[in-house]
Amino acid sequence: MLKGLMMDTPLAISALIKHADRHHGDAQIVSRRVEGDIHRCTYRDLHRRARQMANALGTLGVQTSERVATLAWNGYRHMELYFAVSGSGAVLHTINPRLHPEQIAWIVNHAEDKVLCFDITFLPIIEAIAAHCGTVKTWVAMIDKDRMPPSKVSLTCYEDLINANSDRYEWPEFDENLASSLCYTSGTTGNPKGVLYSHRSTLLHTYAAALPDALNMSARDAILPVVPMFHVNAWGLPYVAAMTGAKVVFPGAALDGKSLHDLFEAERVTVSAGVPTVWQGLLTYMEANHLKFSTMNRTVIGGSACPPAMLRLFQEKYGVNVLHAWGMTEMSPLGTACTLKNKHLDLSPEQRLAVQYKQGRVIFGVDMKIVGDDGGDLPWDGKAFGDLLVRGPWVLRKYFKEENVDPLRDGWFPTGDVSTIDPDGYMQITDRSKDVIKSGGEWISSIDIENVAVSHPAVAMAACISARHPKWDERPLLVVVRKPNAQVTKEELLKHYEGKIAKWQIPDDVVFVDSIPLGATGKMLKNRLREQFKDYRLPSA
Amino acid sequence: MLKGLMMDTPLAISALIKHADRHHGDAQIVSRRVEGDIHRCTYRDLHRRARQMANALGTLGVQTSERVATLAWNGYRHMELYFAVSGSGAVLHTINPRLHPEQIAWIVNHAEDKVLCFDITFLPIIEAIAAHCGTVKTWVAMIDKDRMPPSKVSLTCYEDLINANSDRYEWPEFDENLASSLCYTSGTTGNPKGVLYSHRSTLLHTYAAALPDALNMSARDAILPVVPMFHVNAWGLPYVAAMTGAKVVFPGAALDGKSLHDLFEAERVTVSAGVPTVWQGLLTYMEANHLKFSTMNRTVIGGSACPPAMLRLFQEKYGVNVLHAWGMTEMSPLGTACTLKNKHLDLSPEQRLAVQYKQGRVIFGVDMKIVGDDGGDLPWDGKAFGDLLVRGPWVLRKYFKEENVDPLRDGWFPTGDVSTIDPDGYMQITDRSKDVIKSGGEWISSIDIENVAVSHPAVAMAACISARHPKWDERPLLVVVRKPNAQVTKEELLKHYEGKIAKWQIPDDVVFVDSIPLGATGKMLKNRLREQFKDYRLPSA
Repeated sequence: MLKGLMMDTPLAISALIKHADRHHGDAQIVSRRVEGDIHRCTYRDLHRRARQMANALGTLGVQTSERVATLAWNGYRHMELYFAVSGSGAVLHTINPRLHPEQIAWIVNHAEDKVLCFDITFLPIIEAIAAHCGTVKTWVAMIDKDRMPPSKVSLTCYEDLINANSDRYEWPEFDENLASSLCYTSGTTGNPKGVLYSHRSTLLHTYAAALPDALNMSARDAILPVVPMFHVNAWGLPYVAAMTGAKVVFPGAALDGKSLHDLFEAERVTVSAGVPTVWQGLLTYMEANHLKFSTMNRTVIGGSACPPAMLRLFQEKYGVNVLHAWGMTEMSPLGTACTLKNKHLDLSPEQRLAVQYKQGRVIFGVDMKIVGDDGGDLPWDGKAFGDLLVRGPWVLRKYFKEENVDPLRDGWFPTGDVSTIDPDGYMQITDRSKDVIKSGGEWISSIDIENVAVSHPAVAMAACISARHPKWDERPLLVVVRKPNAQVTKEELLKHYEGKIAKWQIPDDVVFVDSIPLGATGKMLKNRLREQFKDYRLPSA
Repeated sequence: MLKGLMMDTPLAISALIKHADRHHGDAQIVSRRVEGDIHRCTYRDLHRRARQMANALGTLGVQTSERVATLAWNGYRHMELYFAVSGSGAVLHTINPRLHPEQIAWIVNHAEDKVLCFDITFLPIIEAIAAHCGTVKTWVAMIDKDRMPPSKVSLTCYEDLINANSDRYEWPEFDENLASSLCYTSGTTGNPKGVLYSHRSTLLHTYAAALPDALNMSARDAILPVVPMFHVNAWGLPYVAAMTGAKVVFPGAALDGKSLHDLFEAERVTVSAGVPTVWQGLLTYMEANHLKFSTMNRTVIGGSACPPAMLRLFQEKYGVNVLHAWGMTEMSPLGTACTLKNKHLDLSPEQRLAVQYKQGRVIFGVDMKIVGDDGGDLPWDGKAFGDLLVRGPWVLRKYFKEENVDPLRDGWFPTGDVSTIDPDGYMQITDRSKDVIKSGGEWISSIDIENVAVSHPAVAMAACISARHPKWDERPLLVVVRKPNAQVTKEELLKHYEGKIAKWQIPDDVVFVDSIPLGATGKMLKNRLREQFKDYRLPSA
């Protein structure tokens, strides 16, 4: 075998911040802080402080591959840690503070975190877990010295660590397969599982994520990541920002409509990214106050499907192009983005919207397929739906500390999603595998059923789960929360389905409840509902 | 060391064409052929024929890492070979047909090509070299069966190879460092040198080249590569096209203004790429015929500096944004692209043009620096100029079959260019290292001197070379070709310099000649001039 004769340059996360400093040294990082003010620094500052923090980690005894955890909002200090921790060879472990403290303690212990850095918003969590987290040697409060809170836990001030250490630091070179960062899945069933990224997977994902057919990020952008840095690395945006030298605007803890809109306008933000619920809050605020965007030209929406009405409102009323995207923790996270093709340029606005409602095409590097119950490939006709499988260099192979378990099917990762793929390669999620209702060999999408339910004016929230059925195995049961003071009967609701879906897909029964349990990322916990209704007897059964 | 737990997916060129087929199967590849017609196929067709050709290469006895050469225009068959050859594990060796046949024979023998595929335009070259190229077992004419030319060389028809072989072929998996393709530098001094790319370097280059801050290519584009596929893989465009699924329009042999403009319009081309001389022909034709572009929105200009007047004409009159880019064979080839930053968005059109005249910022992955005579770093102030050095995963480490020679300086590749870099990281080439005139410790850019000369209405072409000087070591000597019937004296020309450059930089003498020798890529062969004038005695010396 003849090898190519190009340079052996390992892919490294430190290259991102070195590049940003060298080529975009004066580009700005703007952060709304827990201290209450707006903080400004540059990539040059951020790189200098990241080097100081890398030295600080050394003084704290952090070794290569040991884990340094964060419980933090989106801000410059968090971004410094992204580069200081991974760049120095340790593993950045971002924790979702919305999890229950017991779960957080479980994760910290599982990851064997040596240092935990946190925004003081989360001090109560730290105080609740500190005694149970023996691996953590240093608890670092990410706040100015003069704002350090009193605490029963012995705290180290982030700024003291910075100030006590030199900015002379050479980022080490290492194998590009070295572990760089660790995220735990939110784990609606069982314990959370750790996904361990490498420098290689992160860099390849960053290249792919910035492409014009993905997030389309450039040095001309001012990016405001609403998606949290504890949620799959804010979909990779801190890395993408450094690669492109884009201006970054961090919203901190203030994710309400007014705070976000103020920041979008004041900092001339061009692009943002987040889940639909955040956008709902922003749009409601803007509608009520007759506001517009001056500089925002697009937003990335993922996490869950973007409601068609939101997509249309953003584009038609606010001139903000919506980029529908899909991914998961096990995918770093990006899998698909819904960008158009050359053949779509002549479509009418309505026809374009029909394309944009889908989760989109794979980003180059990711391979996907849909399979039926027998594992055989299903056609890409936009109608057949089956289990969605993926593979590629930024897709998980094993879970952390579960190296003896193979989570793959013939080398493909089963996403747990059920989807269609159309002839142009546009994928649309129709359900979660475990939520789909398997009625007599036919699959019914629980999401389709829920979408019809919430389109009824009296319905606040709806979950469709399967109920046992002697003949059909499973049949759909609809669990509904009514809006305050609204009235609707089971019969009225079932009648509402007529003409909207096939007759055999209409739920067999409706149950009204006061509330539906939600998980840490705002998703309905259908497994809890299934548990609750496991002995439920359908009237038809 | 803890390794990440993501999939081990080697980067492979075959993944590009698989992706294009699977996700953009019906996107078009349009080619103006040597047969005279316009040919249309899709990525699906191209992938099928590439698989057939991969099988054909097997039947011809081509083994892993053996070289398959091409002497061909830009067209679909050439693109098929890009994927068939590299994808099957062999090495694609693209040869510049503008070289002298003796040089071509030398290159074929040096590369030990086993198969050579050529457009029949180049049959005279084949007939001249065949007897001297013993390694070549099969000469493949890339033409329809019924148009096969008579020849004294035993020829195989490309279409026969396709038709005789099945399209059942599984692209093999291999180490991503496997050699994939080979280009020789044009070699203005000494023998040409081979640059051996790998699957890894090619894929990383492709990701980087498609970025919004580089060529900004997407599935919405229709790309017309004017830059030849025998010239550093058409700057990587065939790979970028497959990665993005863009429509591709190949101009074949017809690079005159009318043929190009017709194709731009008929195929709704959005973006093109080429050297300034081709654009000059196109613009002259369009000016004369009062034509416009309907769909072209940008063009990439590289190979040599884009004249400011051309940049302005493209943008102001034709609404075509110019992307100035720089690279070299040893860099796959892309090093920099001149895209703007967020801070430039408020500049006036004139101020933006001033940025765009430079060759631009590095594409992420490439690292650059400028050094002085002592090897020390020079400041990035836009004024200091020195030798430009680069490094990165798609930069050459060794030349092919010269593994015992280290062409690097402390791990950096010396580009042979002299440049400035401004505080924003924008690089501007001021000269070639070997062309710069070193006068008493100060460097004088030969290009600056030439630009002033050709701005004189009577000057057709001008080359500035160094002449020996007892006191200053070197002083500039200007060699000039006058326009037909134009008159200008040495004194008038030297007077023309006053106020345009510093007095000490003005040439010491002017020599008028009938012609200046040009190389295969249209560049002036200054080493020939230096040889010719090596005993020249300056009047001041």
